[in-house]
Order: sequence, then structure tokens, then C-alpha cells
Amino acid sequence: MIEQKNIIKDLAAIRKKSPLIHNITNYVVMNNTANALLAIGASPVMAHAVEEVKDMAGIASALVINMGTLSPKWVEAMLLAGETARKKGIPVIFDPVGAGATPYRNQTAVQILEHCQPDIIRGNGSEIMALANQNTKTKGVDSTASSNAALDAAQQLAKQTNAVVVISGAEDFITDGDTVLSVKNGSPLMPKVTGMGCTATAIVAAFAAVNPDFLHAAANAMAIMGIAGEIAAKESTGPGSLQLHFLDVLYNLKDVDVEKNLKL
Amino acid sequence: MIEQKNIIKDLAAIRKKSPLIHNITNYVVMNNTANALLAIGASPVMAHAVEEVKDMAGIASALVINMGTLSPKWVEAMLLAGETARKKGIPVIFDPVGAGATPYRNQTAVQILEHCQPDIIRGNGSEIMALANQNTKTKGVDSTASSNAALDAAQQLAKQTNAVVVISGAEDFITDGDTVLSVKNGSPLMPKVTGMGCTATAIVAAFAAVNPDFLHAAANAMAIMGIAGEIAAKESTGPGSLQLHFLDVLYNLKDVDVEKNLKL
Amino acid sequence: MIEQKNIIKDLAAIRKKSPLIHNITNYVVMNNTANALLAIGASPVMAHAVEEVKDMAGIASALVINMGTLSPKWVEAMLLAGETARKKGIPVIFDPVGAGATPYRNQTAVQILEHCQPDIIRGNGSEIMALANQNTKTKGVDSTASSNAALDAAQQLAKQTNAVVVISGAEDFITDGDTVLSVKNGSPLMPKVTGMGCTATAIVAAFAAVNPDFLHAAANAMAIMGIAGEIAAKESTGPGSLQLHFLDVLYNLKDVDVEKNLKL
Repeated sequence: MIEQKNIIKDLAAIRKKSPLIHNITNYVVMNNTANALLAIGASPVMAHAVEEVKDMAGIASALVINMGTLSPKWVEAMLLAGETARKKGIPVIFDPVGAGATPYRNQTAVQILEHCQPDIIRGNGSEIMALANQNTKTKGVDSTASSNAALDAAQQLAKQTNAVVVISGAEDFITDGDTVLSVKNGSPLMPKVTGMGCTATAIVAAFAAVNPDFLHAAANAMAIMGIAGEIAAKESTGPGSLQLHFLDVLYNLKDVDVEKNLKL
Repeated sequence: MIEQKNIIKDLAAIRKKSPLIHNITNYVVMNNTANALLAIGASPVMAHAVEEVKDMAGIASALVINMGTLSPKWVEAMLLAGETARKKGIPVIFDPVGAGATPYRNQTAVQILEHCQPDIIRGNGSEIMALANQNTKTKGVDSTASSNAALDAAQQLAKQTNAVVVISGAEDFITDGDTVLSVKNGSPLMPKVTGMGCTATAIVAAFAAVNPDFLHAAANAMAIMGIAGEIAAKESTGPGSLQLHFLDVLYNLKDVDVEKNLKL
Repeated sequence: MIEQKNIIKDLAAIRKKSPLIHNITNYVVMNNTANALLAIGASPVMAHAVEEVKDMAGIASALVINMGTLSPKWVEAMLLAGETARKKGIPVIFDPVGAGATPYRNQTAVQILEHCQPDIIRGNGSEIMALANQNTKTKGVDSTASSNAALDAAQQLAKQTNAVVVISGAEDFITDGDTVLSVKNGSPLMPKVTGMGCTATAIVAAFAAVNPDFLHAAANAMAIMGIAGEIAAKESTGPGSLQLHFLDVLYNLKDVDVEKNLKL
């Protein structure tokens, strides 16, 4: 069950501890991701060289692996960082951007699942369905999948991987395979800003860095994303202003904003 | 001839079909480009690995090749994606960023022209002059070229390459070598935002994805860029706010905005 | 001594000459850096291929080497560009992002110091301390270093390297090893925007491109950064709006803004 007081507690812990979040992420969203992590009170670092990812992941409080813009050296670094984090008990959060779009992405996703054993996987419905099907060696992705179909896939994927699985959408679902939590906050303007999903993944990582109950850490993070996005959207005339207001709202978010706005 | 009703028709088609635009572009502008494509109603994807560009280009409705930040693996991917798109009849839009600045850029531009045979080339006056001269094996770039000299180069380049050539500037020119169209919309503040030219190229690609008459697709795209930039500039106190307002305006652009503001 | 009239003179020279600043910098901040350089009146270019950095550095008025996101090919390009700039007398500005965080960063920093012999080094207190210790073959970084300890390290590093060393912080220090200048402008909101330090480095490069007295060029640049950030922060409700206002303020900065706001 998602509880206001626990969301507030996690948020306070992030702001107090300022956990170092190591991101191996895509070129498109690096700036947004770093800014969102700073705005919420975490400390972002981006590092992707095979020569240093073990060292960087080793000093981080959580690791984000985001496969938005792939190439072989980056995949090698993702696997290396993920293995390091796993061995050290540092939470690994995986964002399978574009899973299902190309064979290379599918193969890479499988490698990351196997080698890094992520604690939390966050994607949209199509990506999660692609991952679940991948794992059962079937093919095809339904990008216009119903919420129900995507949720089934999420539960299946959670059981297969022992990861908490998060599906972003008009309603967000968070599941460990058994329990299903959901958050109804958000705005239809959010997907019009590139990288909002990637930002959600990074925010999930910040919560996982301070809350070892990954099911609730992920759900609390998605609640904060949705609440901040919803408040910001009310002040915005389009995606340009949403991007700005989102960071401002995240930075200034008060307990009362959570209490007044949370929709489960 | 550029007609209001055709600009409006293309814009509606982009919003309705949400064409997938595959961008192999530079690090500086990836975020802007993705946001501009989302704001206009298209669906951006960035992918640059040799391992997947054929697959990604193959499912796209248009391919953008932008050589702003080059390296050998990226050039290899550009050529591979471009050849794939060409064979499948997917429009290829080329942005020769910095052509004329270094021999490596010039050589790469020649390779892209030969292998990818772009349908549309968009650059500033200097870049287009550099490309035209390159092709005729002469040397030198006049970065303070008169509009006339640049337009001559554009017509020459269009004939040499069978591409539609677009020159961005205070007045934009669009030519297939014979017909010359022009758009007078825009604002002097636009070149103070990095990547506005790259954004124009991506928007041209969105129009080419829905309108196979590339001369008019490119001209209609440049009209929308200029109109949105001009409206946004009126609300802006500097380049920071222009970047924000540009996305908001693009997202909210109405038919009447085109009708009231188009300057030919 | 920092003088208002010299800050104003350098700023006017940047706007008049629009010096080309070649940046080999990290993925996270490329967009911000380019926009800040455009806003102040300089002309940014990003190029990182071994195949072209010699050519690009050779036509630039200053070179920025920023090690925020490293990999071997990029390091190779940094060294090549730095050596070229050094031989041609083009100012080299080094930003040792994350020095002290991993051995790879420390080794790379040492290579850059040795091969490129930067004219100016700008970092935060921890980074400067890491560099100074590196050079004396000791270990360890105190990221909560007192200003005094960091300033000692800066003076030591300046003497070791013959570079002007800049420490960013609540109070900025600029030293050639003997003279110490300081600027008190700025806002605590500035470090909440990713890449503000990297932007400072790029602005320092723009000043070094027009003022061969690097101690004062760097100090004047830090004054402009602090003044613009401070004015922008007054209009901002969070880091999202600060990023926007900072560019607008930088673009519109008047002599009187310097005269009214400079705090030494």
C-alpha cells in the first residue's frame, strides 16, 4: 500500500543524504536526468568508460542503466557496472528504452537482465511487454497494448527476473509479481517532453538509494513524479514550460503537496 | 508556390500520423531535436549503433543525418542508415553542420552525399557553399557570403545532387535547382539558441515524412519554423526564454497562426 | 585587482569579436555550454574526433578541455587538441570534472596537465585539491574541504603548473600562485543546475580569448558568471527557471548591471 507518510519520509531522506546516483544513460536525456536528480536533492554522476564504471558504481548509492542510445562499448560498461553494483548490493535500476524496436536492443536487454539482475525495471507498456516476451522467447510487441495486457506482462517479468517492475502511463503500475500498486497522478503533457520516462527511472533510483523496500521505493518515486508533473502542468502552456516548471516544482515540493495531490 | 492551406495540411498530417523520425544527430542538440519533433506531433528516435541503424531506419518514416559531432563509428552508421533508407524509399534529410570548417567534415559530407543521396539538404549559407564547392573540387568557404552567392551555390548543389536544398537565414531559400521558394518569417534571436538550425532540419524531416513533394515539404517546414520562432520571440526576453516558448508555440500552433503570420 | 571597467571591456570585446571557442566537453552540458557561449556573444563549436580536433583547435581562439564524461578516444582527442593549441599559443582552459572520484579521472587529469599545459584550470574545491595532491603523488580528496585548504591547494597547483587556477564556490578564488583575486557574486541556487561549473569554464575561455592577462580574464569571467547568476536567481523559483533566466540575463547584460552588482 502506498502511504503519504512514507513518500514524504523517502523524499526527506533523499534531501538529507543526497545519495550519489551513477547513471549510464542516453545522450538525449543526460541533462534532464542530472537536473531532476539535483532538483530532488540527490547527487547525479554520469560515467560510461569501461575504464572507470566499476570504480564509479562502487561508490554510488544506486546505479541507473538506461539503454536509450546504445553502442557496444557502452553495453560493455553497462554490464560491468551492473555486475559490480550487484555484487556490492547497490540497487540497479534498468530502463529498457526502445525494447522491441530492434533486435540489437532486444539482445542488449536480455544481456542486462542476465548479467546485472536489476532490482527495478521501469518502462512503458510496450517496452515491458517486449521484455517479458523476450524472456519467454516469443516475438512481437504491441505498442497499443491495453493496460491489462501490459500489467500481465509486468507481473510475468517481475516473477521471471525477481525485479520490481514499473509501467509508466496514464496510470502507473508497480509490481513485484504478486502485489500491484498504482498511481493515478500525472498529466498527458508529460510524454510530450522527451526523457520524462528516463527522468522517472532516475527518480526511482534516488528512492531506491534510501529505501531498501524496492516495491514501495519505486511506487513512492512514481507518486512524486506524477504529483510534480501534475502541479507543473497546471502552470504550463506547453512542453517547453512543463520541462522548466517540473524542475522548479520538484525542487520546492512540500509535504502538503503530496498530501493534497496524491491520487491512488 | 508556398500556400497556407498546404502548410496547414502537412501540419495536420504530422499530428495525425505521428511519423517516426530516426535521427543520427549531434550530442549538442539531441534533446532540443527530440522535443521539437514531439512538440510538432512527430515521434523522434535517436539510434547510432552500426548494430541497429539499419533496423531503425527501416521502420522510420524519415531519416535525419546531422554531422554536428562526428567520429568514425558514427559516420559508418550514417552511411549504413542512409543507404538503407535510400533503398527503401525513406526520405533522407542531411544537415552538413560545419561543412567547410575542417577537412574531415568536408570528406564526410562528400561520403554522405555519394552514399546516402539525400532527398533534402539543409544548412546555412556557408555550409551550402562549402558543399557546392566541394562537389566541384574547388576550395574555400565564404562564411560572409551574400544571399545571392549562397543561393547560386544552392541551385548548383541541387542540380548536382538531385536534392532539394534549403538555406536558412534571415530569409530562407528552398530550391530544387530550378524553382526557388522563399520564406521571410523568423527572428534574429533564433540563431542565438544553439541547434535551431538542427531543429529546422528535423522539422523538415517530419514534413517530408508526410509530403512526398520534397520541395514543398521543405518549404512548408521552414515556414512553420519561422512562424513559430517569430511568435515565440515576441514573448521572449532572450535566448533562454525563446527556447522554451518555441516548443510551447510549436505545440499549440493553430491554423490561424499560419494564416496571420506567413510572410513570403 | 578586479576592476569594473576591465570586466566591461572584456565583455564588449567578446561581443564584438565573437571568438570561436572549441569545446571538447561532456555530454551532459554540451547544450548549456553552447547556449551560454552564444548568449555572451562568443561562437561555440563542439568537435571531438581525433580526425579533426587539430584542425578545429587550430582555428579557434580558445580551447576548453572538460573531462566530465571520459572515454579513451576522447582523451586522445583532448591531448591532441591541447598540444595543438599549446603550440599555436591558443589559450587552453581545463575543467577537471570529478577529479578524485576514480583513478581513471586522476590519470587522465595528470595526462592533460602534462601534455596540454593548460593556461587556466577551473574546478570546485574538491577537484582542485585532488589535482594538487595528484601532482605531489599523495592521495585522498576532502570534498568538504574548507575554503582555506582549497585555496592553499589552488596556489600550490598554480605554481606547479604555471596555470591560473580558479576555484568556484560561494566565494570564487582566482590565483596565479601569488596574487589571489576573489568574487563574492553568485547564488546558492546555481549548483542546483547541472553544468553551471562547466558553463563557468566555457565563459572563462571566452574571456581568455580576448584578454591575454589570464589571471584577470578568469577573474572577470567569474565576476560575470556570478553577477548573471545572481540577477537570474532573483527572478527564479527553482533550478528550472534559473537555467532559462541565466541565459536571458547573460544575453542582455548591461554595463550598469556590472557596476551595480559586482561584489569583491
